[in-house]
Amino acid sequence: MNHSDSTRDRLIAAATKLFSEKGFQGASVRAITRAAHANLGAITYHFGSKERLRLEVLVRHVSLIGARLQAVADLPLPARNRLAQCVQAIFAQAAEQPAAPRLFVRWLLHHDRVPAELIAQQRVLVGAVARIIQDGIASGEFRTVDPVCAAFSVLSQCIWFHLIRAVAAQVTGAGGPFARPEGATVMATHITDVILRAFAAERAA
Amino acid sequence: MNHSDSTRDRLIAAATKLFSEKGFQGASVRAITRAAHANLGAITYHFGSKERLRLEVLVRHVSLIGARLQAVADLPLPARNRLAQCVQAIFAQAAEQPAAPRLFVRWLLHHDRVPAELIAQQRVLVGAVARIIQDGIASGEFRTVDPVCAAFSVLSQCIWFHLIRAVAAQVTGAGGPFARPEGATVMATHITDVILRAFAAERAA
Repeated sequence: MNHSDSTRDRLIAAATKLFSEKGFQGASVRAITRAAHANLGAITYHFGSKERLRLEVLVRHVSLIGARLQAVADLPLPARNRLAQCVQAIFAQAAEQPAAPRLFVRWLLHHDRVPAELIAQQRVLVGAVARIIQDGIASGEFRTVDPVCAAFSVLSQCIWFHLIRAVAAQVTGAGGPFARPEGATVMATHITDVILRAFAAERAA
Repeated sequence: MNHSDSTRDRLIAAATKLFSEKGFQGASVRAITRAAHANLGAITYHFGSKERLRLEVLVRHVSLIGARLQAVADLPLPARNRLAQCVQAIFAQAAEQPAAPRLFVRWLLHHDRVPAELIAQQRVLVGAVARIIQDGIASGEFRTVDPVCAAFSVLSQCIWFHLIRAVAAQVTGAGGPFARPEGATVMATHITDVILRAFAAERAA
């Protein structure tokens, strides 16, 4: 059982790397199983198909971000600080797996119905951010906003930055916030600033 | 010349529709030329290849949004109002061409280098929003922010909503802002609210 789990994990790790580098079509079953030190039938045995392995890669990726955001949501800190840490956590995850956002969105754009296990992991992710916003409304730190819409504002900016950074660098030029090496830090600070100001409780007149 | 231009336009219109419905691979040269009432060689004649036709479709789409945003930027209105109208303009364009954002991002995710004509059109688009923000800073409506980062905050939320609306509806359920028919209006209002509060000039203490 342990040995089987670890083959499974190695296959997911190898597939994440190879799908990112070569695309789904370009990453052959042979290359993935070789990189995972598994036999040629291991993908079929553990996942049923290469397509199901891809889904597992995506579920794993979303669940890693979800776990980070849940951990942040559970911190004994004001909602403002936890929301700022959400942005940091998403940027940290993207720095560790730079190809994953593209892999995920490519897949999304080719599938209208998303399998239940991926939906469940996305709920965890959105739910963690929405919970922090609800906490902030309850504590008076934030004004009353729709927590799901507010979570959308956080996530959309963080994800879009990592998706289009290379293109945006070409559009905005070498001096812009996308091309500079410290661009991710600049943008994480900017996004945090935008959302904290946007959700801040109204000051008494 | 006129006749030639109009064949070109009909090919772009037919390709936009068929690429959206069937994907790039699925939309055959035969189907596109037939829908455009053109002969089978028309794509090669006018564009050189189906791949170049796809690029023209994308350039056309981005230039339509860019033209709308430039028109908004030129309005004799306070920056706040113009920024709100930018959000409306992007949502209006997406309502007219619902498949275009996906088409565009699918393409982006498969190309690291973006051709100069597409970069130029994206510059128009980003530039129009950034100009409004600069105007708002100059007039004292907005605090000092990086206009390009601020434009990113506007565009990322608007585009991401249209990209992932179908998936988000599955994640957030039937009562959520993505599934409801009026969801686009709810979200446009939310995004406008977020950006205007985020960029608002600090009140005097």
